Formats: sequence, C-alpha cells, structure tokens
Amino acid sequence: MKTEERLKKQLDFLLEADKSKQVFRQTYLSDGSRKENDAEHSWHLALMCVLLGEYAGEPVDKLRTITMVLIHDIIEIDAGDTYAYDEAGNATKRERELRAAERIFSLLPEDQAAYVRALWEEFEEGETPEAKFALALDKFQPLLLNDATDGRAWREHGIRVSQVLKRNERTAEGSARLWEYAAGLIEKNAELGNLEDDR
Amino acid sequence: MKTEERLKKQLDFLLEADKSKQVFRQTYLSDGSRKENDAEHSWHLALMCVLLGEYAGEPVDKLRTITMVLIHDIIEIDAGDTYAYDEAGNATKRERELRAAERIFSLLPEDQAAYVRALWEEFEEGETPEAKFALALDKFQPLLLNDATDGRAWREHGIRVSQVLKRNERTAEGSARLWEYAAGLIEKNAELGNLEDDR
Repeated sequence: MKTEERLKKQLDFLLEADKSKQVFRQTYLSDGSRKENDAEHSWHLALMCVLLGEYAGEPVDKLRTITMVLIHDIIEIDAGDTYAYDEAGNATKRERELRAAERIFSLLPEDQAAYVRALWEEFEEGETPEAKFALALDKFQPLLLNDATDGRAWREHGIRVSQVLKRNERTAEGSARLWEYAAGLIEKNAELGNLEDDR
Repeated sequence: MKTEERLKKQLDFLLEADKSKQVFRQTYLSDGSRKENDAEHSWHLALMCVLLGEYAGEPVDKLRTITMVLIHDIIEIDAGDTYAYDEAGNATKRERELRAAERIFSLLPEDQAAYVRALWEEFEEGETPEAKFALALDKFQPLLLNDATDGRAWREHGIRVSQVLKRNERTAEGSARLWEYAAGLIEKNAELGNLEDDR
C-alpha cells in the first residue's frame, strides 16, 4: 500500500473513532453534572493503568494494557453502550459488537486492523494478565464514580447488591487490592441505601 | 507510606482528574455538535500515538509518549484551557499552569507526583523525541477536527493562516509526514475561506 493511502486509512479510522465522544454511558461524572461518554471513560481507564499498575494481579505489559483500554469501547459507535444491568441488551450484545468490530476496525490498514481486532478480542475474553487487569479497571472505575455521586446511576436504575457483585465476580482476578477496596465501596453504598441490599 | 494511604492518594488524584471532562476546548467534535473537552482530546491523542507512531521524526518510547499525552492537560483543571490564539491568555499561561501543577500533582504519592510532574515539564519543554512527537499530535489533532467541521472554530475566531503556521512551526520536528499532511489541510482551508489568507 502506498504511504498516502495508508495514512488516509489511519486518519479515516481516527475520525470515525471521534464518534466515541458521543456514546454515553449510564455512569455520571464525579460532579454528577452529566453522564460520561466512552472517550472520557477510556481516557480515565488509561490513566488508571498508569497510576494503579502496581495493583495488577500478575505482572502486566503496561503499553499493551493501556492500548487495550484505549480501544475497548470503539465498537460501541455502532453497537451502542449496553448498560451492565440491562439483561435484554446483554443477550444481543456480542452479535452487535462483532458486526461493529468488522466494520470499524476494517477502516484501518490491514496490519493495524488485525492488531486492534486481536487486542479487542483479548479484552473480551479476559484470559491474559493484561485483559484481566483491564477488565478489573473497567468495573472499578464506574464504582468509583457511583460512590462519588451517592450512587446516582444505581439509584436511578434500582440496582441491587447482588447485581454489582455478579458484575464484579472476576475483578479480584485482575486485582485483589482494587477488589478489596471495591468491596468496601459496595458495603458502604448498601448501608447508605444507594444499592438495594438483597443478600 | 502505608499501602492504604498510598491507594487513597492515588484515588483522590484520579477523582480530581475526572474534572478534565469538564474543561472545554475551542475545537468542535468532528460532527460539529459541541466543543471537545480535555479528557476526550487526551484520549484521541493517545489513540493517535498508537496508530501514527510510525510517523514520529525520531524513534519514540510509545508508553512514555502515551503517558505524556494522557496527563498533559490535567493542569487545565485549575489553569483553564487557553485558546492557542488568545495572546493575552498565553502571556499568563505558564504561571497559572505552574501553580496548577503544584497543587494537582501533589495529590499523588511523592514518587508518582514527581514522575507525572517531570513528564509534564518534558512535554512543555518539547526537546525529547517523545515530547516533540506528542506536541506534533497536540497540534495535528485540532487541525483534523477543524478540517472536518469546515473550519468552524477558526471561522468563529477569525483565525489567519499566519497564526496557524506559527502555532505549527515545530510540528515538522515531531513528524515531517504529519506536518506535510497538515500543511495540505491549511492550504485547503485557506482556499475555502475557513482561514483568512494573510500571507
């Protein structure tokens, strides 16, 4: 491929990825002013990789983990954000996301398309040390924001303790220390009534 | 420092950094719907590091460059975003940003505060290969968004070609290839009247 065509494909992808700034999640910013979007969320996770890497369960390649979190939600441009506690949405999530990955990653030159696609699949599978840690951060970050906003998104959706525990059943695999902290936040928010205690 | 206190400091910083999602820049998103904030901008730059690294002028440590762009605008939580073409604002920028760096980075444990502070200074000085490339991306990304929105932010502020050229006088040092592409975008937008051609 000529260098001109290669650069054009890379920039087309980067402009397409810009749409991540318009995919909104259920979690509120720490000041409660509005919901967070995928680009902001991914930036926050990448910053967490930088600063909380010492708590990863196994040694991780930091560059690989950061790259993973930077790209992990780009498929939501087509597939939309599926709220963690939306059962119907989660039943069709995988199929919608696969179609999205096919279209969006193919905008890149072949070598980079294959690289990003493989990294996204690795994240989804959650089996490597990097994917386990990235998944732990992906669950930990909204807990932190929910706690900072008196459980606003949880209260709006009537979320129960058992649902948050189920969603975090693998967080300890990625980081025992962050899971320990998260468990404390869940306990605190159950006591405050921000989460319905159904245990 | 006890591990509990260390983690608390790291999370305090990460919650403070969350405010980057509310610091708005002058550049519009590619769909023109609203202005971009610092968290989104930093995510976009990090993604560019991943995908455009091959165009860096000198070999760069990718992890170091990505970390640099992830943290480069956090000081704007206190210092505010200074528009590239605001002369009065740019006269007091350095002083405001130094005060901000002092307060915000000090939230972290000492070793991480020193690391992030040094990385931010390295970016500001723009002398290492990583800083040169990060600075080139920091100038290139808004050009790309301005081009995608028919020069919307440029037109709103009556920006002239000479101002964009001056702002990009070091972009070629970070990446000759991206500067070549950027120069083409500037030419195109001057012809379209999105930039006032004062050459």
